Formats: sequence, structure tokens, C-alpha cells
Amino acid sequence: MSEFQQATIVKKANIYFEGKVTSRTVILENGTKVTLGIMLPGEYEFSTSVKEEMEIQAGRLQYKLANEQWQTIDGSGVFYVPANETFQLKVEEVVDYCCSYFNE
Amino acid sequence: MSEFQQATIVKKANIYFEGKVTSRTVILENGTKVTLGIMLPGEYEFSTSVKEEMEIQAGRLQYKLANEQWQTIDGSGVFYVPANETFQLKVEEVVDYCCSYFNE
Repeated sequence: MSEFQQATIVKKANIYFEGKVTSRTVILENGTKVTLGIMLPGEYEFSTSVKEEMEIQAGRLQYKLANEQWQTIDGSGVFYVPANETFQLKVEEVVDYCCSYFNE
Repeated sequence: MSEFQQATIVKKANIYFEGKVTSRTVILENGTKVTLGIMLPGEYEFSTSVKEEMEIQAGRLQYKLANEQWQTIDGSGVFYVPANETFQLKVEEVVDYCCSYFNE
């Protein structure tokens, strides 16, 4: 799907790491939340409160989930982070991502 | 207005200047297009094809329209760029903007 229709987008950006990571919050027609974001090259650590799907639309990064090896996504790919977990990222080329949140 | 409802958001980002300027294209319920974007500190030059309204939601920048002096926006403000014109920006603090396009 290349676009979200009938959605609500919050005008103000979410800005992290002095602008190296930014995103926009979108509420889809079915009420679920996603964020559309950009990550510039760098190393980051994030923590989840709910399960997250990280869909990489462009760029290159390595990601590391708790108790797992580093893995690479180049161009496009997806990974899942369980709720209440910290994960690490090494962004090598500007990443365009879509993060979905699952209140399970 | 803090959010756009009943809108269409293009999933893929618009990425310029190696990610220092990025935006998301949003088509509003009335069919008009806006882009919600981020500019990191730096100096940039853009050109318009239609008249643009640049609404600064956060951050600090100086802007210069053709044949005018440099002007500063700190925190929030708006400026207009006529169609088919080049304008310059000096971004001093991460800028969160909303650009509207007027097909007059």
C-alpha cells in the first residue's frame, strides 16, 4: 500500500536525537496508530511499550533485538520488536520507515 | 488546527539534501496538497512552481525571498513565496514546517 487514505495526521512532528530521528503520527481509518519516520545515519536505542512492526521503506540499517545477533536490512524489509523491550539500531543510509503499534 | 482529518498520506518520504530536509505529502479532504517537513540546521535554496505558504511550527530560521532582505522566524510564523521563484533558507534550529501549495 503506497498511501493511507481517510487517515488523520498530527501536524506537529515527533523529534528525537536533535532531529536525526523524526516522525509524524498517523491514525488510520480503523483507529490504529502508525508513525512515518526518518532516521539519519547514526546509532540509536529505542524502547517499546507495545509490540511494534518496523517496516523499512528505504535506506540501510542494522538492528539488534534483545538476546539476538545484529541483522541487516538494505533497501526494504521489516522486523518486529516485542512489547517492553529495548532495541538498537545502526543506521548507515538515511532510513524511511513506517512503524505500526500492536496493543495485544 | 493541530491535525488533518480525512486525509491521504503518501507513505514514502520526500528526501532532499541527504536527509537534512525531508517531508511527507498529504492530500487534504478538499483535494489540496500540503507537505509536512523537517529541516535540520544548514543553508538551503528552493524554487517554487506554484505559490507556497511556509508555516513554521517549531524551530528557528532566516529566509530570503527574491529582492528582499533576510527575515527571521523563531518558534512559529509563516511566509509566502510567489510562484516560479527561488528562495533561500538558513536553518539555525531544527524546523518543523507545513507547506501549502496554491494553484492560482
